[in-house]
Amino acid sequence: MGGLASPRAAETVPAPAIPAREGEDALSALVELVGDDLHACDRAIIARMDSPVALIPQLAAHIVAAGGKRLRPLLTLASAHLCGYPGPAGGARHVDLAACVEFIHTATLLHDDVVDESQLRRGLASANAIFGNKASVLVGDFLFARAFQLMVEDGSLAVLTILSRAAATIAEGEVLQLQTQNDLATTEDQYLQVIQGKTAALFAAACEVGAVIADRPAHEQEALAAFGMNLGIAFQLVDDALDYAANQATLGKTVGDDFREGKVTLPVLAAYQAGDEPERVFWRRAIEDGTQDAGDLDRALRLMAERGAIEATLTRAHGFALAAREALTVFPDGPARRILADVADFTVSRAR
Amino acid sequence: MGGLASPRAAETVPAPAIPAREGEDALSALVELVGDDLHACDRAIIARMDSPVALIPQLAAHIVAAGGKRLRPLLTLASAHLCGYPGPAGGARHVDLAACVEFIHTATLLHDDVVDESQLRRGLASANAIFGNKASVLVGDFLFARAFQLMVEDGSLAVLTILSRAAATIAEGEVLQLQTQNDLATTEDQYLQVIQGKTAALFAAACEVGAVIADRPAHEQEALAAFGMNLGIAFQLVDDALDYAANQATLGKTVGDDFREGKVTLPVLAAYQAGDEPERVFWRRAIEDGTQDAGDLDRALRLMAERGAIEATLTRAHGFALAAREALTVFPDGPARRILADVADFTVSRAR
Repeated sequence: MGGLASPRAAETVPAPAIPAREGEDALSALVELVGDDLHACDRAIIARMDSPVALIPQLAAHIVAAGGKRLRPLLTLASAHLCGYPGPAGGARHVDLAACVEFIHTATLLHDDVVDESQLRRGLASANAIFGNKASVLVGDFLFARAFQLMVEDGSLAVLTILSRAAATIAEGEVLQLQTQNDLATTEDQYLQVIQGKTAALFAAACEVGAVIADRPAHEQEALAAFGMNLGIAFQLVDDALDYAANQATLGKTVGDDFREGKVTLPVLAAYQAGDEPERVFWRRAIEDGTQDAGDLDRALRLMAERGAIEATLTRAHGFALAAREALTVFPDGPARRILADVADFTVSRAR
Repeated sequence: MGGLASPRAAETVPAPAIPAREGEDALSALVELVGDDLHACDRAIIARMDSPVALIPQLAAHIVAAGGKRLRPLLTLASAHLCGYPGPAGGARHVDLAACVEFIHTATLLHDDVVDESQLRRGLASANAIFGNKASVLVGDFLFARAFQLMVEDGSLAVLTILSRAAATIAEGEVLQLQTQNDLATTEDQYLQVIQGKTAALFAAACEVGAVIADRPAHEQEALAAFGMNLGIAFQLVDDALDYAANQATLGKTVGDDFREGKVTLPVLAAYQAGDEPERVFWRRAIEDGTQDAGDLDRALRLMAERGAIEATLTRAHGFALAAREALTVFPDGPARRILADVADFTVSRAR
């Protein structure tokens, strides 16, 4: 992970300046850049999640077709585009591998919701809330296996190496998150390890694959992996900030989910570490003992505001977004590079 | 699945004659046949389930190291041996792939126990009972991903095709089982589809891989796949019979687990279909409505005895075991073939 901004480096970054471009424009430009590839990817997703066992497409459709931004497959498609794939000879490997990336993501979402006992996902009832935990575990397993079948059909051992390593790293990050749950002694480094694993590893793999199928040299593959890794960390940092700051109606997120689950995210760590002893007593009761009263979330939000915990988290995210932009500079300037760089900015600006 | 004994063909098989060889001998002979390969496989398993995230080796050790028969990796090792791998040039691919088969199996066990809410596994507390459902789901995901990493390191797309298809088929079988749970209208064909998926597909893949790495011709690969598929079906049929007939102290199984969970297995279907109307009312209440009283398991056992349901299940298992033996006849006679054939017999004889 040569291109990963270290926590120390990120600390020296000044408070983020909001980029001029509006956030939604960055995602729209990304969708526009890949053109019909995204629809082709959607068709591949629908076709390959099919099974004679009816519950599989039913449940998969609920989570896959219900949508989301398709950010990870978009990254594969755009990275391929940046690297000149498909060239004049054509090819659809980027489309199939983008579908495969989305399947891995969907499988982890299904299992996450079981592990977190979530009732909502993107503002809708979660799959486990409708179909039950058992079905979510097993259909997640199916989608994961199907993702590997797609990769094997693609036939590149280099791609298989990248994505199977990412899959193992995701699971390691999730288990580490479980290990650090309710533990305010978690260090910032451990927290960053968790989010590198559970979120950023798949962003990195999704981008790297684009360079690999385009047969680009190693330093360009590494640059796209570093872009994805830093982007993914920024993305998750902002997600963790939004869990305490989001407009529920806009984002379909419930403010305070992480708080209720005792998740030790950076906003909590920042407020805890900057807090005085009475504040720390509060955090220990609410996060470690898990005994929460009606007014506790409001108090947590107030303490975070007073201690600048959200701002500190977003500043850190901005540092990683800058590192993501920086990683792209090995590529010549052009529309694809500019749009991917704007996506890095958007990752942070969506929180403001 | 050309070599799969059809339900109709199996019906014409006479009641099983118990083979002369003692069951435990068949497994011991299998272990002896593969010699040090099994220890090498155990070492590979221990080495590759490691992770800097401490909970992963802890939980994996509980289920992997606690043992079981290692039947599936033994099948890979013995199949390779039957096919002359490793030859004079040496090689350890069979060992690594046997470890990979055991990882896939272990991952499904972890998820099964979560789905079934099992408290016991081989007579010991299950991983979910000790470490919780969340850890079991996530460590299962890790082991599954690690299995794919091992396969990718092996580097054969043919092996990857076989094992990734098996992984998807296992998940499909598990989901189908969930769909048919509590439903006495399940047909025998649907039940066979469930056990082909959840159990026999991995037996088939474990055996087929042995022929593939030995570069044997297609008809020998297919023969070993058919052997494994029929063996796996026989194995699961007997397992389902033992759930109503096992000696708990010997097998570490609790009699009646399937009954309490409302699982529609062949013993239940056979008793239900052969029963009169009052008996069917009983089965519908106990299995479909899930309202069970203290004496219900005893009544179920009595009805199964009266209707010959266990015997019918074992007779069917015997038919599949015969088909497994038959599939081996494309190979020349010799110790490896004889020992694998004895394992097929043992699969049924262990119930008697």
